[in-house]
Formats: sequence, C-alpha cells, structure tokens
Amino acid sequence: MLDESAKGVFTIAATPFLPNGALDIESLDTMTDFYMEKGATGLTILGIMGEAGKLSAGENATVIERICARATVPVIVGVSAPGFAQIEATTEVAMAKGAAGVMVAPPSSLRTDAQITGYYRTLGERLGKTPWVIQDFPLVTDVQVDPKVILQIVEDNPACVMLKHEDWPGLEKIAALRAASDAGSRRISILCGNGGQFLLEEMIRGADGAMTGFAYPEMMRDVTTLMSAGDESAARDIFDAYLPLVRYESQPGLGLAIRKYILAKRGAIAHATVRAPGPKLSKAAIAEIETLIERQQQRLAAL
Amino acid sequence: MLDESAKGVFTIAATPFLPNGALDIESLDTMTDFYMEKGATGLTILGIMGEAGKLSAGENATVIERICARATVPVIVGVSAPGFAQIEATTEVAMAKGAAGVMVAPPSSLRTDAQITGYYRTLGERLGKTPWVIQDFPLVTDVQVDPKVILQIVEDNPACVMLKHEDWPGLEKIAALRAASDAGSRRISILCGNGGQFLLEEMIRGADGAMTGFAYPEMMRDVTTLMSAGDESAARDIFDAYLPLVRYESQPGLGLAIRKYILAKRGAIAHATVRAPGPKLSKAAIAEIETLIERQQQRLAAL
Amino acid sequence: MLDESAKGVFTIAATPFLPNGALDIESLDTMTDFYMEKGATGLTILGIMGEAGKLSAGENATVIERICARATVPVIVGVSAPGFAQIEATTEVAMAKGAAGVMVAPPSSLRTDAQITGYYRTLGERLGKTPWVIQDFPLVTDVQVDPKVILQIVEDNPACVMLKHEDWPGLEKIAALRAASDAGSRRISILCGNGGQFLLEEMIRGADGAMTGFAYPEMMRDVTTLMSAGDESAARDIFDAYLPLVRYESQPGLGLAIRKYILAKRGAIAHATVRAPGPKLSKAAIAEIETLIERQQQRLAAL
Amino acid sequence: MLDESAKGVFTIAATPFLPNGALDIESLDTMTDFYMEKGATGLTILGIMGEAGKLSAGENATVIERICARATVPVIVGVSAPGFAQIEATTEVAMAKGAAGVMVAPPSSLRTDAQITGYYRTLGERLGKTPWVIQDFPLVTDVQVDPKVILQIVEDNPACVMLKHEDWPGLEKIAALRAASDAGSRRISILCGNGGQFLLEEMIRGADGAMTGFAYPEMMRDVTTLMSAGDESAARDIFDAYLPLVRYESQPGLGLAIRKYILAKRGAIAHATVRAPGPKLSKAAIAEIETLIERQQQRLAAL
Repeated sequence: MLDESAKGVFTIAATPFLPNGALDIESLDTMTDFYMEKGATGLTILGIMGEAGKLSAGENATVIERICARATVPVIVGVSAPGFAQIEATTEVAMAKGAAGVMVAPPSSLRTDAQITGYYRTLGERLGKTPWVIQDFPLVTDVQVDPKVILQIVEDNPACVMLKHEDWPGLEKIAALRAASDAGSRRISILCGNGGQFLLEEMIRGADGAMTGFAYPEMMRDVTTLMSAGDESAARDIFDAYLPLVRYESQPGLGLAIRKYILAKRGAIAHATVRAPGPKLSKAAIAEIETLIERQQQRLAAL
Repeated sequence: MLDESAKGVFTIAATPFLPNGALDIESLDTMTDFYMEKGATGLTILGIMGEAGKLSAGENATVIERICARATVPVIVGVSAPGFAQIEATTEVAMAKGAAGVMVAPPSSLRTDAQITGYYRTLGERLGKTPWVIQDFPLVTDVQVDPKVILQIVEDNPACVMLKHEDWPGLEKIAALRAASDAGSRRISILCGNGGQFLLEEMIRGADGAMTGFAYPEMMRDVTTLMSAGDESAARDIFDAYLPLVRYESQPGLGLAIRKYILAKRGAIAHATVRAPGPKLSKAAIAEIETLIERQQQRLAAL
Repeated sequence: MLDESAKGVFTIAATPFLPNGALDIESLDTMTDFYMEKGATGLTILGIMGEAGKLSAGENATVIERICARATVPVIVGVSAPGFAQIEATTEVAMAKGAAGVMVAPPSSLRTDAQITGYYRTLGERLGKTPWVIQDFPLVTDVQVDPKVILQIVEDNPACVMLKHEDWPGLEKIAALRAASDAGSRRISILCGNGGQFLLEEMIRGADGAMTGFAYPEMMRDVTTLMSAGDESAARDIFDAYLPLVRYESQPGLGLAIRKYILAKRGAIAHATVRAPGPKLSKAAIAEIETLIERQQQRLAAL
Repeated sequence: MLDESAKGVFTIAATPFLPNGALDIESLDTMTDFYMEKGATGLTILGIMGEAGKLSAGENATVIERICARATVPVIVGVSAPGFAQIEATTEVAMAKGAAGVMVAPPSSLRTDAQITGYYRTLGERLGKTPWVIQDFPLVTDVQVDPKVILQIVEDNPACVMLKHEDWPGLEKIAALRAASDAGSRRISILCGNGGQFLLEEMIRGADGAMTGFAYPEMMRDVTTLMSAGDESAARDIFDAYLPLVRYESQPGLGLAIRKYILAKRGAIAHATVRAPGPKLSKAAIAEIETLIERQQQRLAAL
C-alpha cells in the first residue's frame, strides 16, 4: 500500500493501442517491464497522458489488471471522474486488482478554497482507508490550489499520502509545503510532473522524486538518485543532456504522440498509436525528434 | 428512427436517484410516463442535465434500456465522451435498445472551424447511418460554432438530422440557418434548449420546437403548439405565466436541483436527489420555488 | 461620500456615442437626468456595460466630470484596470471631480482565496480613505469569491463599504453575508446586478437594492421600494410585468445593444450606438423588442 | 516602415520601473542600447511582457517617444486594446513618434474563424496604410487561429506584414504558412516568441527569426544567424547552452520577474522592479538563476 514515504520515479504510463485503435494487451507487459528496467520505483496508470478518458470501463479494468499483475513496484491508478459513484467504482476495481493507491484531480468547476477542501473531504469519506494522491495540475484542470489548501486536505484526510505536483510554476509551492511539514504538519510525499522540465529545481526545493512520463525514465532515475546523493553537479549534467528532448516532448497536445513515438522506437510498446481524437506526427516532427535523440546520445556518451 | 422532420417537445430527461444515491429504476418509468403525458413528442436522455457524467457504464445501459422500453415516443441518447471509441460503444448500446438517434456535444478543446468540422466528420464516419444531433451549448462546452460551420457539418454528414440549439444568445443563428435552408441547403430540425427562456422568440425565428427539461413540459407543449397554429398572443400569455419559474430554474449549477425538486413534487420521480457532487436547496430556496409555483397556478387559472 | 447605508437603485449608466463613434456629450446630461427621474438613488458609471474598456483616458475623464457635475445623487466610478497605478490615477480623477466612491472587479488571473484577499488588501492600501465597492461578477471575471473571502475583505478594509453582487446564482451568498453581519461582522451595502433578473429574491434574502442598468429603472425603483415597504405581492406584480423584457435584455453580448436601443427610444440618449467592436441589432430583434415593450405597457396598465 | 522582409531578432522590450514603481526613463535608454548591442534587428515595445496594461496613456506615450528616439532599428508598438478607438489613438501616437508598425493581439472573446477575420478586417480599415503585425498567442489570449485564417487575414489586409508566432505547439503552423506562400499566397515575415524555447525548430520550419524577450538576446542573434548561414550544428550548440535558462525564464507568471532580474544584473536596466500586481523572486529562485547563469557561461566558454 502506498504511503507518505514514496519516492524516486513513478512513471506516468502510456496506454498502448494497436494501429486499429484497439487496446494492445501485449504491449502493456513490455511497457511495464521497460519502465521498471529503466528505473521506475512505481507506476501511475490511467492518468491524463494515459488517455484514460478515451477508454471504456471494461478496457480500464483490463489495463489495471494486466499492469498490476506484471508490476513488482507499487501501481497508482488515476480514477478522476465527474461523480463520486464512478470514482468509488473504479477504486474498488483497482484495489481488488492489487493497486497501491489511487489519484484524483479536482474537477474544473472547483474554484474557491472551500470548494476544493470540501470536494476532497467528501472524497476522503468515500475512499475510506484506500491511500490516495492529489493531482494538482492547473494547466489542464484550471483549478488553482493554494499551499494552505493542500495542507488542509492533508490534515482532513489521513489517507491522503501524496501530492502529484504539476503546478506551473510551482517551485515556491514545494518550498511552502516543506516549510509547513518542517514546522509540524504531516509530511506527505511530493512527486513532480510537467514532463520533468523542472525536476532539478524541484528536488532542490524538497520534492521526493518525479511522477511523469518522459520517454527516458532513466533521466528521472539518475537525476533523483544523484540529487538524493548530494551530487548536484552530476545531476545537472544528466538533466541538461536530456533537456532539449524534454522540452520538445513537453509541447501541449502534441506531447503524447512524441512520447509514444519514442516509446515505440525504444521497444517499450509495439505501436505509437494515439487513440482518436488525437494528434499525429508529421515527417518534419519525426526528423526533429530523431536529431534530438542522436545529439542526446552523443552528449550522454561524452559525460 | 430520428429524421429532419422532428418537432414539438423533446424533453431533456432527468436521471432519478434514490436518497442513497443509487439509480431509482422505478422512477425511470413514472418519469417517462409523466413527460409523455405532459406533451413530450420525444425524450432526450443522458445529457448534461441528466447527470450522464456521473453514471457508470452499466447504469447508463440500464437507463437507456428502461426508458426506451417504456417510451412510445422517439428517444435520443446523449453519447458525448472524450474518445470516439466510447461514443461508438454507447451508440451501439443505445441503438440496440431502441433509441431513435444519439446526440454529441463538441469537446471543449475544439476552437477553430476546421477543428469542429473535422471532429464531426470523423464522428459521422464512425456512426455510419445512425441519425445524430449536434449539441451546440457554448455556455457549458466553451465551443462557439459559426452558422457556416453547422451548415458544413450538415453538408458533410447525411446522418446529421438535428441541431440542439443552446447558443446564448442564439436567435440570429436560427435565422441564419433557416435563411440557408430556404436557399437550398438541407433543412434539419432545430430544437431549442436554455431552459425554455427564449422559446417564444426561437419559434418566431424558425425553430421546430424545444429540447429542454423545464419541469413543466406543458409550457413547451403549449407554446410550440400555439406558435405553430399562428396564435402568438395566446402563446405569449402562456409563456409569460411560466416565465418567473423558468427564470428561477435557469440558475446555473443550482438549476438541476430546482428542477428535480419540482419533478418530485409533481410525482414524476420519487426523490429530488442529485448525485454527488451536486447542489442542495436551502429552505429559503424551497420557499421561493413554492411561491413561484403558487403564483404560476393563479396566473394560468386566470388566462 | 459613499457609505454602508447606501440603498435603492444605483443605475449602471451606459456611455452614449454619436453615430460616428465619438462620445456624445449632450446625451451624458439627458441620460443622467433620465436615470434620476426614473428613480435612481445613485449612478455607477464606466463599468463593463459602460464600455469603459473602449474609452481613452481623456474620454474617461470627460464622462466622469460631466456626469458628476450633473448628478444630484452619489456617483460610483468603475476603475478596474490591470495595474494599481492606473486604478489609483483614475480614482484620483474621479474623487477630484466629485465621485462618491469607486468600484473594482478582481482581475481574472485571481483564483485562490489568498490571491483575492491579497489583491484587495493592496487595493485598500492604495486607495486609502476613498470608499470602494467590490464587484463580484464571476460570469465575466471568471473569479469566484467565497462569502468568507468577502467577509475577510470587509474586515481587512474599512473603506470597503459595498458589494456589487452579480454572482449567478448568488442568492445563498446574500443570505450567508447577512447571517454574518447579523452575527456581528461589519454590515456593508449589497446592491445586485444581473440585469435585475433575480431582484425580487435578492431583496427577500437581504439585499439593499439594485445596481444594474435595465432600461426601465422604474422597475428596480418600484420593486425595491415595495419590498422595503413589505408589499411583496405588489412587488411581484411589477416584477413579473417587466420580466419578459428583463430576460430579453439579459442576453450576453447582445444585451448592451438592446439596452441602448430602448434608452434611445425613451429619449434618455440620442443614439443607440455601441462602440466597435460591438453587436448590432437585426430588424427581427428590434421587432421582438417592440412587441415586448408593447405587451409590457399593457400589462403595467392593467395592474 | 516595417515590411514583409523583416527578419533576425525583434526583442520584446521590458518596461523599466524605479523601486517605487514609477517609470524609469533613463533605463529606457540603456535598455535600448543594450538590446541593439546584443543583436536586436528590431524592438517590440509595450507588449504583454512589457506590462503595457499597467501603464497610463501618458506613460505609454513616454515609452514610445523615448525608445523610438533612441533606437536605430525599427520599433513595433503593441497597441492591443478592447476598442478600436483606443487602438487607433495609440497607433497615431506611435507612428507620429517614429514607430515602424504596430502589433495587435485578438481580444479573447473571439472564437470562430469569421469572428477573427472580421475583427482584423475592421482593424485593417481603421489602420489604413500603417504596417501591422498579428500577435498569435493562444496561451494568453485563449484565441486559436487556424493557418487558413491567418492566410485570409493576409489576403484581406495588404498592411499586415508580419506574424508574431507564439502558438504552442506551433511548428506545423509555420510549415503550413510557408507551404502556402510557396504556393503563391503573399509571404509575410514570421518571427517567433515563446521565450525562444522552440527557436531552433522554428527556423527549420521556415521562420524568419525571433520576437521574444529572453534576457540574452545574443542567443537569438546567434541561433538565427547560424541557421540562416546553414550551420545547424553550431546553432544547436549555442541553443542547448542557453536552454536551461530559457526554460527557467519561461515559467508563466514568474518569467517577467526572472527576466528583469537578469536584465538588471547585466546592466540593461537599473532595477528589476515589476509593477504591482506582479510576482517577486524568492531567495531560492535567485540562487537558482545564479547557478544557471554560471553554468551557462562555462558551457558557452567551452564551445
């Protein structure tokens, strides 16, 4: 079961599809193996970049079951939905299949502090003892969550054990949360998203690791490991070597297609298919990715 | 099967719940009977005001099956979803259970004309011969659809037979679409939403009727019937008598709770429960509704 | 100077233009006279419906000077702007010309409670003793302000004397604020907007009056007066008689053109011109307005 | 006067303030000199990152006059405003003071293709022969402009000579526009923003240069020069060396404070002041910036 001590790299898992758009069951296995081999200390499945919104309930259950059966690291399942009834139902499936916890983003209708804390209080009552993660991703949810609100949620809900931090810019938020836990509030795990673009500074500010899906999880593994070991300079060398591609993959809308292209190229999944409606890469984009990968390899080799 | 000649009142059906939040199966029957008795020439189920987003796939299927079995008027099923795979799956269920057609709102990520027509072209390919309805509801979807874009969708997709018109303000859009069909473009059915607030002027501009869920469907029945019969003055008398309550029910967010309160009061459904997360009525709000109903009855009696 | 005791009808003033788009100075006078004659106990100028955003700083000053010189009731000046420097500069002009206070809406970038209270705290420091009004209009600003946040602003800022209430739906907010002032928090004036659509219930819940620009200020005068006198039934008769037009004028985007058409028809201003970019009324819309006015007069006559 | 042949680096100029928030006139001169010395082939002033919205009309005129008097490269003035009257007035001031052209972003109320082309058609009529630039910045304006719409605007308006490209992701848009001008549509200048994050790929796709305010304009100078000279490898080396700081400066909201901190550190402006309301840098952020600058210098030295 997930708890506040989680750290390292929880990879945001893609959902693989066959060229005809059907779920690619076999690639669920190869992808799970790939992530673990490249340094994942956990997996987060069926999030926004996992195209969860485009799956049927049955497909959802298949993905949960298959990945939980294969993974030897904790699996967090994204269960965000418009109603608590659905959230409860998916959580039940997930925990029955062996998930370590679930993740819930705030619905975009929430605005005020009271609306947000109220939402998570109801969630906490519904989920009981199942460990859960707040997904704080304003660029997509359009919900801005003050650090004090996060602290209130943590205080209200003992089962809230982690923040997926994806505010942007959000470095001061990490600092504020760590100052609060240093001063006595319950310390939860903070894992950071945003494609890894700010991972280096996030670690400096007190994050416990990364929760993002950049197609080279070894970047997040190396940066978090080196930072934890106090070798900031080596961490920066690694980070900078990957940064041109991190940046390219971070393009909104297009990013998932780029990520899947690389995952397929690396053998993690069989096909780069994004389920419709979704973007496709042009030849020019593919050429740009290939050049970035080539330079990345040269630079890593030169370290 | 639904076609371009549809008119009258397609009631936006609520989804009834028991006080504990479970689906209220029996009320599906009484509600269907109620709508038909009060003048519905069709039903639209599982739309935004039908809390479709809060139902599991299984509950969704139950609602479709039960209402299609009971209704003797055409049933349109809302099937909007983030991915085409889900839309196709729900459509298949709906048509197998006896629905007359489906309704699809544009995802809020769509902005440009090309994005919107492209989305509906793909939809049309996926849905084949199943008749479908464009739901044009910018206040909720944040997608603005130009009249020319609607005409392009109509031209591209022979199975698109109806517009659920809920732009706001949208009177000029109806006029533009009718001018275009008068000039030779295929004429589709236009049924109007917005809680009925503009039904009178919508009929003047060329709408074929209403598709909305105001808790007194007899208002929409009488107004559309009288307008079609050319008796605008009588239609206005009816409309004005209901307007204070139409207005009160049109409050965003709160509207569904108001509507369900009245439906329960009228015996259409057993309980006013809105599934969580959702609003609750205060005592003051209930008192206001009761006063409005009382005055409405006096005024109707005096006509 | 404006204080917490303000009540009645603060009309949201239009800004009149000549057909060529230039400011119509003479109509500023006739319009001011018209509003006072029809029952305004105050005027609010240069708000969103006053097209303030489309005026140059010089034109702004002209409008302030002319209306303050003419009006024998308190004048509130809308001074919302992206920066505090501009807010201060316009406030200085306004108070020098004889305004009673200023009104400030929150910038749409504000989301969390802390951001909103922080913004108004800085505002309060900048404005010093000048009385000011919070404009709470989420439909336009996209900022949602919790009742507790309003109470905090009131506590932080002695010069905050009024709330322009335009949340939607917002009846419970009025009730919550009145419960708080009954329990001891400083009681400020609450005047309500939204085109007057909910004025009746707003008065029941504890509002002190209206601050809106419906083209028949006598509606707001009569409803607020009758409600204050305890004659709810007569107030409802008046309200219901105007409601079909209130509703028509409340169409977003188009509403200002409708309002100016009626103001011009009634002789308050010389021309219905809306400054570009802005909507124009079709012949069909004008016909609809004329019909609504005619029926309104008949119904008022029959009371 | 600005024309379609513009290329290189049009720096988005900051607006310098004294610690008390007043305009810093002398820094306008030193900053202008700095930008030109570091490779600016043009300047763009009073844009979003120039805090134009926080200046009074008088301050605006001062900035225009001072910079136009000092600069020996073309100056583009941002004149976006809610109304055409203001746009015309500021344009008149700008061109009288010696500006080369003006830039206009679409108001965020625009959605459909017809609304956008209509807006720019009216703008073109108002501005006459003054050369102007479309600012396409969806992340801030929330307006998405299809490539076909840009081509229509170019066709409708001979005085439209440049696109400030800041769509995100927008590489395919550049490619589409260049394919269209290769096929015969009028070719306008395309200069790219987004803090320079995608400058390398933008040049590959056919951009003519950069229009952005990254605090090291020499990055944009070197990358655009090397790319134009066909030395992509050297361009990438430069780009990659600056990328960690480019990324850090690209944080929304905070970016301007970071940029001004560096400009002040480099002596371009006397103070890093951002006008209220605006962000301030924490000590931790400053330390992060200093580290990034130090590593950047080492890496550039090693090239």
